[in-house]
Amino acid sequence: MALNPAIILVQPQLGENIGKTARAMLNFGLTDLRLVSPRDGWPNPSAGPAASGADTVLDQAKVYANVADAVADCHRVFAATVRDRDMPKPVATPQAAAQIVAEYDASSMNCGFLFGREASGLSNDDVSHADIVLTVPVNPSFGSLNLAQAVILVAYELFNMTDGTEDMVDADREEPADKAETEGLHQHLLEELTNRGYFRSEGREATQRRTLRNLILNAGFSSQEIQTLRGVIKSLSRPKC
Amino acid sequence: MALNPAIILVQPQLGENIGKTARAMLNFGLTDLRLVSPRDGWPNPSAGPAASGADTVLDQAKVYANVADAVADCHRVFAATVRDRDMPKPVATPQAAAQIVAEYDASSMNCGFLFGREASGLSNDDVSHADIVLTVPVNPSFGSLNLAQAVILVAYELFNMTDGTEDMVDADREEPADKAETEGLHQHLLEELTNRGYFRSEGREATQRRTLRNLILNAGFSSQEIQTLRGVIKSLSRPKC
Repeated sequence: MALNPAIILVQPQLGENIGKTARAMLNFGLTDLRLVSPRDGWPNPSAGPAASGADTVLDQAKVYANVADAVADCHRVFAATVRDRDMPKPVATPQAAAQIVAEYDASSMNCGFLFGREASGLSNDDVSHADIVLTVPVNPSFGSLNLAQAVILVAYELFNMTDGTEDMVDADREEPADKAETEGLHQHLLEELTNRGYFRSEGREATQRRTLRNLILNAGFSSQEIQTLRGVIKSLSRPKC
Repeated sequence: MALNPAIILVQPQLGENIGKTARAMLNFGLTDLRLVSPRDGWPNPSAGPAASGADTVLDQAKVYANVADAVADCHRVFAATVRDRDMPKPVATPQAAAQIVAEYDASSMNCGFLFGREASGLSNDDVSHADIVLTVPVNPSFGSLNLAQAVILVAYELFNMTDGTEDMVDADREEPADKAETEGLHQHLLEELTNRGYFRSEGREATQRRTLRNLILNAGFSSQEIQTLRGVIKSLSRPKC
């Protein structure tokens, strides 16, 4: 089952960012949004439009007066912060954090992620409620992530933990044509080329023919594609209108 | 070295989204932004503020009249789209795509990622320029990703390909105190508890003492933390002011 830890925004400033966070969450199946004393109160009229349809997340959002109340039911709390601090906490990447959430989830224990204010991030006091610091590895010379961007990277890794999508799915191409059709194309091409003096050197002709057969065969054309190409050859062989 | 494929926005509509894309790119070290006939021309005054400091990416952005020109120097092109199409292309996750870019990069071959218009995505014609479809696995019932969000997930996976951050770094805690200090805390606690009648049953006292010693030892307190706790015990033992 998909993981669904609490996403906790500590004193978020802009309703628009709360809406974008809701959208990012729902993109990856997260629905437990918690707001710790949002600056402009709650509900916030700017949140809905920015959520682009993730209203269900906003409607269910819970508001708390402080971090302690917001994390009360969590067994493991992560604090998203890039800054070094004097606090002795382990530091996890989003992927490692998702792994830990999956382990707690398997024992039916809830987890939570603290995200800070847009302008100033989490305070040292906020971070002291967390067991683990979550740091996204970023470009060291341009590391400031937008709030909803930070949330979506965590949500993405959480979703990946249980999602079964294959890394790479082969092209759903049509079956390659049989050799009679492929050879028909080859012969058709050779005939029109011969008519036009493409094969000038007898010494090279055998090699050129082989090169063209390999080129056609390696492309793996379908029966339909071979029909298309025969039409192309026929058309190219006609005099200009 | 960090990967730096081209991020190609096809007919982007809002300057704000171009700016946010630039910020998302630079967060993960990408700098090659290409715009295919942006709706409102280029430069666009809304892009700068949204880029939040990633002006270098905007300043270097190149504008193209069509997709073919924008991908001309690319050896492998990915088209970001969630929709099923009648086109026979392999489909890759962001992680698999990053892996492929790394392989091409090792042979000094450039790659590109096509991202579509905010409202309508990539057209079938746009996608026909790509070798591989890139699909982010998402919540099937709420799968529409914002432009900069789609870009940041790809940028994040590209960065991860060459970034050496450990998944999990242990807490940089102070060294645990030696046994004399730990035992000193234990004895101090026992003494004050004994003075206050905590040990009521002689049969249980040995077990209670052992429980407390284990509790103190397992916590792994540092010398400094033990000093703090002895101050706490001393204070608790005083009469109320």
